Amino acid sequence: MDIERIERVRANLRRRDLTQLLIVDPLSIWWLTGYYTEPLERLLALYLPLDGTPTLFVNRLFPDASATGARVVSHSDTDDPIPMLCDAIDAARPLGVDKELAARWLVPLMQAGAAANFVLASDAVDDARAIKDAREQELMRIASRTNDEAMAWLAEQVRPGATELDIAEGLLATYRRLGAQDHSFSPIVSFGAHAADPHHEPDATPLAPGDMVLFDVGCKRDGYCSDMTRTFFTAEPTEHQRAVYDAVRRANEAAEAIVRPGVTFAEIDLTARRIIEDAGWGPQFNHRLGHQIGLQDHEPGDVSATHDEPVQPGMCFSIEPGIYLPGDMGVRIEDLVIVTEDGCEVLNSYPKGIQVLG
Amino acid sequence: MDIERIERVRANLRRRDLTQLLIVDPLSIWWLTGYYTEPLERLLALYLPLDGTPTLFVNRLFPDASATGARVVSHSDTDDPIPMLCDAIDAARPLGVDKELAARWLVPLMQAGAAANFVLASDAVDDARAIKDAREQELMRIASRTNDEAMAWLAEQVRPGATELDIAEGLLATYRRLGAQDHSFSPIVSFGAHAADPHHEPDATPLAPGDMVLFDVGCKRDGYCSDMTRTFFTAEPTEHQRAVYDAVRRANEAAEAIVRPGVTFAEIDLTARRIIEDAGWGPQFNHRLGHQIGLQDHEPGDVSATHDEPVQPGMCFSIEPGIYLPGDMGVRIEDLVIVTEDGCEVLNSYPKGIQVLG
Repeated sequence: MDIERIERVRANLRRRDLTQLLIVDPLSIWWLTGYYTEPLERLLALYLPLDGTPTLFVNRLFPDASATGARVVSHSDTDDPIPMLCDAIDAARPLGVDKELAARWLVPLMQAGAAANFVLASDAVDDARAIKDAREQELMRIASRTNDEAMAWLAEQVRPGATELDIAEGLLATYRRLGAQDHSFSPIVSFGAHAADPHHEPDATPLAPGDMVLFDVGCKRDGYCSDMTRTFFTAEPTEHQRAVYDAVRRANEAAEAIVRPGVTFAEIDLTARRIIEDAGWGPQFNHRLGHQIGLQDHEPGDVSATHDEPVQPGMCFSIEPGIYLPGDMGVRIEDLVIVTEDGCEVLNSYPKGIQVLG
Repeated sequence: MDIERIERVRANLRRRDLTQLLIVDPLSIWWLTGYYTEPLERLLALYLPLDGTPTLFVNRLFPDASATGARVVSHSDTDDPIPMLCDAIDAARPLGVDKELAARWLVPLMQAGAAANFVLASDAVDDARAIKDAREQELMRIASRTNDEAMAWLAEQVRPGATELDIAEGLLATYRRLGAQDHSFSPIVSFGAHAADPHHEPDATPLAPGDMVLFDVGCKRDGYCSDMTRTFFTAEPTEHQRAVYDAVRRANEAAEAIVRPGVTFAEIDLTARRIIEDAGWGPQFNHRLGHQIGLQDHEPGDVSATHDEPVQPGMCFSIEPGIYLPGDMGVRIEDLVIVTEDGCEVLNSYPKGIQVLG
């Protein structure tokens, strides 16, 4: 167990007037205890009281958890773990629950009267996870450096006849060669008008002459995620293409320029959004500006117009404005940043100027 | 939308005295509407009333859902979808909820008083999904045939110097060559004593002379999953190894022999378990006998001592007894079966006799 992290979560619980929390996100459990397994439909839960030893509920088929230092309560596939949870939970008090807690567990806990009431409280963990310590920041830097190197490899794959799927499927081997273990999300490779769908899935379409090419990719390295987008040209850009690209690039750079402690997520989003609106494509920037990132590609607390909280040193998130013109084109430019004491550090150094490949 | 499937789910709801159901499992939504997307932290939900048109709640970033025939209610990243759900749900009546519904949605729905109360009811869908129709059965057969072919390829990879990881990482390309699209779960390749952990993750350990080799693998082909385990020898088995192997094989075959409509899941489990207990390794068979399977590798309704319901024609599940001896060896032998009118069809034909490779 990581006592310092557990105490940060407990401090967040106290601020919320809670005395107990049930955590089920496997990455949160790993972050607090060093224990990791994918439970699938089985139960993996960490019960964290304000005082006393946390209890880890594990299925007997999971790896041994005794080295964590937590109290371990194990169950088999034929046990009902609900009474075991009830034994640990203080029924007279409210229970904070993880936002990921599935109804398969939450509804029986409610029926069993496991707690006085049930409140969403995974933000007590998420807020703690959002502030990366020095070691985590270094791992975020390394993962993004690997992603910069992978982007250079991707740019080299843009040749006549290449398909989105070919390039996407070659990326994992490249990440591994560069020292990463996995993708942090399914890579997006979009040729031409496919880029107008922000979440396009790579298909067998070959590159057509003059197609623009969008790569939105990330790797997982030593547990931490990278995530970057670049949009390339394969012919000299038209005036229209250049105008769209420049609006997105200016939005990206303006947003990165204002990040510093005290500025709100909403202000960062609006800074980018206003530039794209002023250029005439406001409605075509149809998603939030970014998301926090760390052990997961998408972590809670997005960079959007409705998120009024100020950013804090150690927070890490994406800045990824885009313009999507169905049937025509799409441009997105994305970097990760870490908030510093007086600004931010941009983790990606792959160039953002117009680049014509091939 | 598949009206016949929707009516089967509605019949299950009526039997449970429910008039409305909120489904969030993306595969259940696909099975009922033909619409598939991975929502991650965003909301994807199908509201199914007993009468009237179902409503599909989608984020605007998801693929277009209008072709489903469902009423589509879409939201953006900055909208709160809870009031939209409340508009559709009848607040005066109980709401059946999917066991996968995350607390991030369920707790706010409860706080908003969206329904008279909330009951776990995804079994209304799961029970319908459990009975495979003729076309689904054919897809299950094809996926298992591909898995039989892949097992032959795996057996050929067992050579001095091969590592678990090398073999596991080569499997996806083999599945694709054979016509499948993906793994149905992360493949298990275990050499020697590694097989004593039923969920061992392949590592860089090379094959040692005389190691036994366990493969537990499955592919996803046209949406449907296969899942099979075989355990091989690389030297003539000792008496001890042969006794363990034979007990597992007899347990597998005895269980398959008694499957027919009316027999309970528990009886099937006990049939296998008794053989292993009589052979003296009862405690070393430390998991349920099997699980149902279809669109997912693990579907609800396991083959275990506590599941007293009778099997029905069209159900498909695994029969996978095992004996695990830490520090020594592990054996598991697994087939998939489909329940027929008067028995069962075993979907795997890869041989189960003792096989010495190399």
